[in-house]
This record gives sequence, C-alpha cells and structure tokens, in this order.
Amino acid sequence: MRATLMYGAGDVRVENVPDPVLKNPTDALVRVLRSCVCGSDLWPYAAKPPVEHGARIGHEFLGVVEDAGAEVSGFSRGDVVVAPFVWSDNTCDFCREGLQTSCRHGGQWGAGDVDGGQGEAVRVPQADGTLVKLPVGEDSPLLASLLTLSDVFPTGYHCAATAGVGPRTTVTVVGDGAVGLCAVMSAKRLGAERIVLMGRHKDRTDLGRDFGATDVVAERGEEGIARVRELTGGDGTHTVLECVGLEQALDTALGVVRAGGTVSRVGAPQYQHVNMGFRSFLSNITLTGGVAPARAYIERLLPDVLEGTVEPGRVFDRTVGLDEVADGYRAMADRTALKVLIRP
Amino acid sequence: MRATLMYGAGDVRVENVPDPVLKNPTDALVRVLRSCVCGSDLWPYAAKPPVEHGARIGHEFLGVVEDAGAEVSGFSRGDVVVAPFVWSDNTCDFCREGLQTSCRHGGQWGAGDVDGGQGEAVRVPQADGTLVKLPVGEDSPLLASLLTLSDVFPTGYHCAATAGVGPRTTVTVVGDGAVGLCAVMSAKRLGAERIVLMGRHKDRTDLGRDFGATDVVAERGEEGIARVRELTGGDGTHTVLECVGLEQALDTALGVVRAGGTVSRVGAPQYQHVNMGFRSFLSNITLTGGVAPARAYIERLLPDVLEGTVEPGRVFDRTVGLDEVADGYRAMADRTALKVLIRP
Repeated sequence: MRATLMYGAGDVRVENVPDPVLKNPTDALVRVLRSCVCGSDLWPYAAKPPVEHGARIGHEFLGVVEDAGAEVSGFSRGDVVVAPFVWSDNTCDFCREGLQTSCRHGGQWGAGDVDGGQGEAVRVPQADGTLVKLPVGEDSPLLASLLTLSDVFPTGYHCAATAGVGPRTTVTVVGDGAVGLCAVMSAKRLGAERIVLMGRHKDRTDLGRDFGATDVVAERGEEGIARVRELTGGDGTHTVLECVGLEQALDTALGVVRAGGTVSRVGAPQYQHVNMGFRSFLSNITLTGGVAPARAYIERLLPDVLEGTVEPGRVFDRTVGLDEVADGYRAMADRTALKVLIRP
Repeated sequence: MRATLMYGAGDVRVENVPDPVLKNPTDALVRVLRSCVCGSDLWPYAAKPPVEHGARIGHEFLGVVEDAGAEVSGFSRGDVVVAPFVWSDNTCDFCREGLQTSCRHGGQWGAGDVDGGQGEAVRVPQADGTLVKLPVGEDSPLLASLLTLSDVFPTGYHCAATAGVGPRTTVTVVGDGAVGLCAVMSAKRLGAERIVLMGRHKDRTDLGRDFGATDVVAERGEEGIARVRELTGGDGTHTVLECVGLEQALDTALGVVRAGGTVSRVGAPQYQHVNMGFRSFLSNITLTGGVAPARAYIERLLPDVLEGTVEPGRVFDRTVGLDEVADGYRAMADRTALKVLIRP
C-alpha cells in the first residue's frame, strides 16, 4: 500500500510499504477513508534531523473495518470507525479513569511496527478499546467533522474541560490554529459566555467567531496581555486555554489569567521550563491539561457532530490526495492552509 | 511597645516602636497573646541584604481586642481573636470566592504602616473581614493549636484541598517542616488512607506519623523518587503536596506524581521556573496551590481544634519571650527547633 514517511525537516514522501496484516487477535485492519495533517506533525517537519529510513507518520484517521482478529468483538467488516490519536485497551485503570493516553497496554501510531495514519490502511492494535463505531456510511458528508474526533476536537475539549470552563467562567484561547478553534467551540459548548480568542490570522479568527469567540485580540506578547486585561477590567480571565505549545504562548496564557484561575495547555510543549515562580504562586494559578485522552471524549462529542450542532470539520480548508501529502505539509507550514484533509 | 525588626540576614532585633493607634474606622487594636516564627521568615533571615532601618516582621498572631474603630461591628473589647497571615475585607469578589490572599482591599502584615505580628500589639486593618473570634479565654491551653490557624494549618490544608485529596487518592507530602506536617494532618482529615511523608528528621517524621503519615521516605532526590515509586507499584501517588519551596523539592514532587495526578505547592517558591516540559505534558500532570487564603479555612478547621480532634500546636517545640526572638530565629535556622512560639 501507499503511506506517508517523514525523512527529516521538510522531507515528507509517500512510498510503497507492506500491506498491513493482523498480528494479534485483538487487532483490526482499517482501510483509511480520511486522514489529515496535525499541527504537531509540523514540529518534526520543521526540525527533524535527516534519517536514512523514513518514519511512518500520521495519527488521525477514520476508515472502514476490513478485517478483525478473533478477540475483537465490537466491530464487523464494513463498520465505519474513527481512531483516537493514541491506541489503548480502554479497560486498564488509567483508561477507566479517562486517561487513555497513559494506557498500560497502549501506544502511538507510527511507532515500532504500528502503522501511521497517513496511509491507505492501518493495523489497529487493541481494536475493541481503540476504535469508536460511527453510524454513517462511507460517503457521509459528515466525514470531515467526524475525523476531528480523532484529535483536534477532543484536544480542544480536553483543554476547556480540564480548565474548568463553565457558564460562570470567562475564557481566553491562545492560538487560532485548528485546536484553538476547537477549544473555542468547546468552551462555548461548556457554557462560557465570554470567549476571547488571541490570534492574528483574520480568516481563522473569523471562523473562531463563528465557533463562539466573543472577542478577538490580534496583538501578541505584552501588548496582547495588556489588551486582554483591558477587556476584563484589569483582571484577566478565569480560564486560559493554551493551544500553541511555544514558551511565548504559555507566558501569554500566564499573563492573562485571573488570580485563582487556571491555565490549561494542550499545545505540545516546545519548551522545557514553565515560568511559574513567585508571581503565579501569589496568585494561586493552576496549570493543567496535557496530551488529550481523545478516546475519553469521543462518545460525548459524537452526538453534537451527528446532529450538526457543531461543525468542527470547518477547520479543514484544503483537501489533498495521498500523493499530494507533501504539498499539504508545505501549505500548513507556510500557513496558507489551516488544516489539511487527506483522501487516500 | 516592643516589636521585632529584621535588619538583614541573621540580624533580628527587638526594639521600642510607637504604640499602635486606630487610624481607620475599620481598624481594631489587638494585644498579642501568641505569635510565632514562620518558615518563610527564614528566607529573609538567610539572605536579606542589610538595611539601615529594620522592617517589621511576623504574620501569625492571636490576641485580645483592646479597641475597635466605629465601623467594626463584629468584635468587642476582650474578644480573643486569631488573624490569618494576610488581612482582607472578606467581602470583595475574590474574598467571596475564598481567595482572600487576592483581596482587592487587603494587604500584608509588616508592610507600609501596618504592624508585624511579632510584637506586643497590632493595628488590624479591615478588622471585621480579617479577624476570627475564638471562643476561649486568654489562658486557654489551646492557644498554641489555635495560633496555627493563622498560617501553617490552613496552608497545609490548602495544599491538600487544592490537590484534590480524598478517600481514594494516595498522597505524598514533600517536606517535614511545620507546613508539611500540617499537610499530613489535612490529608488524613480529607480521608486519605495512604500518606507518604518525605523527610529526614526523625523527630519530625515521628510527629508526622502521629498526624497520619503511613510511610516515611528519608531519601532525597532521585533516590527518594525511586523509593516512593517502589512503594506505589511504580506509579507514584495521585496527589503530591510540596511544602518546601525549593526547586529540588518541586522536582521531587513532579517525580513522584502518578500520571493524571496533581502536584500542589504551598512552599514559597525560591525558584523562577518549573520543570514541566514534555514529560509532565504527556502524563497530564496538574500544578496547583499557591499562597494559602488562610481566612477561607479558619471556620472550617476551628471546630476540630476546639474539640481536640487535631493538635496542630504540637508543631511548636520551643517557646520564647519577645526579647528572645533572635534565639528563636537562630534555632529554626539551625533546625534545632521545628517551629518557635513567641509569648510577648
């Protein structure tokens, strides 16, 4: 089959790889209907040292079950399913607590002998725990929105939920990428009435307004902090959703949070240390969030997508075939695309 | 009157200062019955550059109301009262949320024209909001335990409460100082069944066992982390209460916390940055806590002290008169005393 491999910064190739086969009785084989490029894929695309043997990549996909091992009971051939961005048994103590990203028997797509999602098919380990059945056909117009259940939508939701967003909390979202926009949508779903979106790409912040943002702040750094404080009577917002992963973004988040408030981060950290010394101690600031256990949220968010109450698929503003994946990476890295959908 | 002044590292003096008088109609005058030295007083005692004019110090006291301004309605002459370690109006939005340390009209003892607590008397601003009446006499044997309501007991409780300690959470307490021991007591009060105390002073950890610690780990750094992990099947504990304030202590806390768990810190940070990069992100670790709004907890903890269910006053292992305060500082700095009570 064809699949995407990352050979180093700026070097993404689509090549022939062995067709996946069932290895364990808990595996399923899924033919990929839709995949996409994640903002976090752009970190290796920007900085990965060159390697001789490319690494499989992609961790968001939705597809059709083609075959399943003897111990897979939840799925049959032909089922349309979505996979969260890590696989997990969904039965261990961590999974039962809703922390499938720390599953005792789970792992990552594209690691070891596990396929990446940006290809024609994937062997899914722990299929019963990992996959979620979608009550739609292969040609559903909802596929793009359903694909966001794999990562960006639950990641934004995790950010808002762990921050404690609710009807009485004001919210700042730092970052107008796909996750930030999904965080806006999630904050609105959780009842927030005031949602300040920090971002400077007008097409993105316009979509953010559609998703529920009540204010947009285009300034960055100290100016951005001052602007959010000005909008909130000097206090900052109760919750801040950090959806970038850069140190400056986290510093901004810490700069706009109200005393006693919470910063939740879901941007994969490109920093080692967090600037939380005496000042944040005196203000009783909480830092929470982390890699989102998407699996824990899919059933909760699925009805909204099926009913069309939310349309997270609007974050996809470009679609490519598998052989054009390199163009998709380039477009996202150049910020000419917000998020790229792949139709293998 | 006589009061304590800090002139620089190692230089604490008791001198004559002007008697406090009512300045605002919301003030009260309190004659101090008991005060004490805080672990946080040891930071300036260790490192404050010398100054020509000493600064008033002390933020924990309990005393008798001697006079009150026209707008003070809650207290009468002769009432025995305890003061939390910051003063506050207890009516603003932050106070109503239980964050009196961020009161819009509050402040610190010993700052500006406000007296410190380590003296014979104190002018108490915002007396109605700040003080809590104690139903005891001046000669109550409970005074030492009641004095801990000013800081160490609610600080330990804040740490455990913000960490989310409960019957189903395992706990590690980092630090066997007075706050750490009060954190142990608080974790037990909140229902924790497994409380690991990290400390290497046997007399202190013995008291910690009396307060509820089920395990004691004397090792520090990587060895200490390994030992706590060993005690918890490799996982670490759901909650970690950081009661020191040094970077190494916080690193230890982050090293022993279970995936999905919470580190709460109440040790005044002697660091600028927190080591929470990718690893803690992948484990969904939360950092919370901060300077404790003691005022928010006093009524909740008072009944236990009055009934003798808890005896936090056992953290005081030395008592000095006001003129011996310098000896008290020295004893705490040398660690020959755990916490020093002052009887002016």
